[in-house]
Amino acid sequence: MPVQALERIGNKLKLLDQTKLPGEVVYREIDDYQDVITAIKRLEVRGAPAIGIAAAYGLAIGVQQANDASKETIAKIATDIKNARPTAVNLAWAVDRVLGRLEQDKPDGFDATLKLLWDEAEQIHNEDRALCRRIGEHGAALINPGDAVLTHCNTGALATGGIGTALGVIYVADEQGKKITVYADETRPLLQGARLTSWELTEAKIPVTLIADSVAGMLMRQGKVQHVIVGADRIARNGDVANKIGTYAVAVLAKQHGVPFYVAAPYSTFDKNIETGDDIVIEERAADEVTNGFGKRTAPDAVDVYAPAFDITPRELITAYITDEGVLPGGRQ
Amino acid sequence: MPVQALERIGNKLKLLDQTKLPGEVVYREIDDYQDVITAIKRLEVRGAPAIGIAAAYGLAIGVQQANDASKETIAKIATDIKNARPTAVNLAWAVDRVLGRLEQDKPDGFDATLKLLWDEAEQIHNEDRALCRRIGEHGAALINPGDAVLTHCNTGALATGGIGTALGVIYVADEQGKKITVYADETRPLLQGARLTSWELTEAKIPVTLIADSVAGMLMRQGKVQHVIVGADRIARNGDVANKIGTYAVAVLAKQHGVPFYVAAPYSTFDKNIETGDDIVIEERAADEVTNGFGKRTAPDAVDVYAPAFDITPRELITAYITDEGVLPGGRQ
Repeated sequence: MPVQALERIGNKLKLLDQTKLPGEVVYREIDDYQDVITAIKRLEVRGAPAIGIAAAYGLAIGVQQANDASKETIAKIATDIKNARPTAVNLAWAVDRVLGRLEQDKPDGFDATLKLLWDEAEQIHNEDRALCRRIGEHGAALINPGDAVLTHCNTGALATGGIGTALGVIYVADEQGKKITVYADETRPLLQGARLTSWELTEAKIPVTLIADSVAGMLMRQGKVQHVIVGADRIARNGDVANKIGTYAVAVLAKQHGVPFYVAAPYSTFDKNIETGDDIVIEERAADEVTNGFGKRTAPDAVDVYAPAFDITPRELITAYITDEGVLPGGRQ
Repeated sequence: MPVQALERIGNKLKLLDQTKLPGEVVYREIDDYQDVITAIKRLEVRGAPAIGIAAAYGLAIGVQQANDASKETIAKIATDIKNARPTAVNLAWAVDRVLGRLEQDKPDGFDATLKLLWDEAEQIHNEDRALCRRIGEHGAALINPGDAVLTHCNTGALATGGIGTALGVIYVADEQGKKITVYADETRPLLQGARLTSWELTEAKIPVTLIADSVAGMLMRQGKVQHVIVGADRIARNGDVANKIGTYAVAVLAKQHGVPFYVAAPYSTFDKNIETGDDIVIEERAADEVTNGFGKRTAPDAVDVYAPAFDITPRELITAYITDEGVLPGGRQ
């Protein structure tokens, strides 16, 4: 069974503090919405879906704590939460969805308002859980017994309200008794593959082997990898995918070795406002994530660093998109 | 000007302690052969050519220190030095070459013997210096003004008695006023690109940008790389190259993007006893180089790790071999 990154327990939010992984497994039960904000800021909770769900629960917690469901109080709490990570699209989306529901239903009095807030947050959580499950089921149909799957970064239970996207496929294939194994790229610079993916798969007792990112090519040449499955941050209208830096290189290697390359993501990741991958601005990360990655400086002070957060994988390198709406063909011949 | 990893100063060996880079630049002047052995064991000196040269100097230092050039004393010191790193082929080769010279010349008395030991060590050092220079000159002819060169691992002044092999090409092109720039793969797990390559190029005032290994593909797609130049640990008769893990993936990416891929190495790296890359046994490194990179654990205790030290790049992916004997064509069309 996959871990749960977050969970409603009565009138509290139980949250796994991911900054302490893999060394310590610390769950916190939160009943102060400022603690939700801190958790989002400090990346104790991460992954777009999980952040959105935490934000929605945070709004319910804030109103409960204020003991006041006035429009002003709700608006203030909503704004505070949205400001926790202003660039996280899913955070604002989740808060706005709850506010919209309030607007529509106009619950009468504090108790009814608070109940609606909790209910809508749980609804968002349940929808994400179901969505992950559908992605997992669509994807698992592509996996044969005994296959080895390579993945990059973390798109699992730790990043969502359910079993994840790329890892959702792996969890469902495992449930189906397919006895698959996983290779996890460590995913420099922030090592999500080492810290998170290899941890959650180990917890779920799915065989996982951790590799440096530079080992993936050799593994494919040795015939040890049957599928690559990654997540997506954004998908352009033409099918180009923005995802964690290193995804593109893995896609090129997969094509070279005839290994299918799948992108697993909610259908909503297709962004109608973006024509192609060229229209996606690539965020750059701080140099010291590369030069000071392990708590110890490993490069000269003065050295220049290029540290893009994402890269673009063109549609031609993608075998298929595994979505909650089904498997859509990619552009790879 | 490139740094010098090791240098004879009078009757001492001046050695840069590479374990302290890039944080501290510490040179040691060694006049005790046990300190040479320790330096080799602790990887204060590394790179096959540099280890061989240090070993040869160590033999002279040992005899000087013993104040005795009897056959027995020399044999004991030689054995001690060879045992510092029994798998380092170049170490044994250098010591045996000095012993062979003694055998041949039969110098008379302590002073003549000691002089021959120092002379032969310096001769080995000078030959390596000249060899690096020839590789650099052959390679630099392939580089155009303003080109950007991507390299993997460290094959520079820090690994040899001279200006290095792959980095030798870069140093000579820079001397020729070609104003080149370098992208250095950080080279997980041991980060030789971050710790060593980016340090020595910064010291030599050659513009260098450090990247996580997973960024190389994206850079090539953006058209930012004109050449890839790497070193080689061994080259099979058919031209397959064993080199630092990650080299193969870079070679695949270079081919995909039409970027020339060069292997720079002494002609002696071609091993007549190895038919193809398939005959080369790949050493595996300890898991904790991946899970515990620099003093902090970044993966679960129980996780499996696959950490090959090298990979094999087939001849078909190599544009050319840049050797001291000239540039030999590879198998890439």
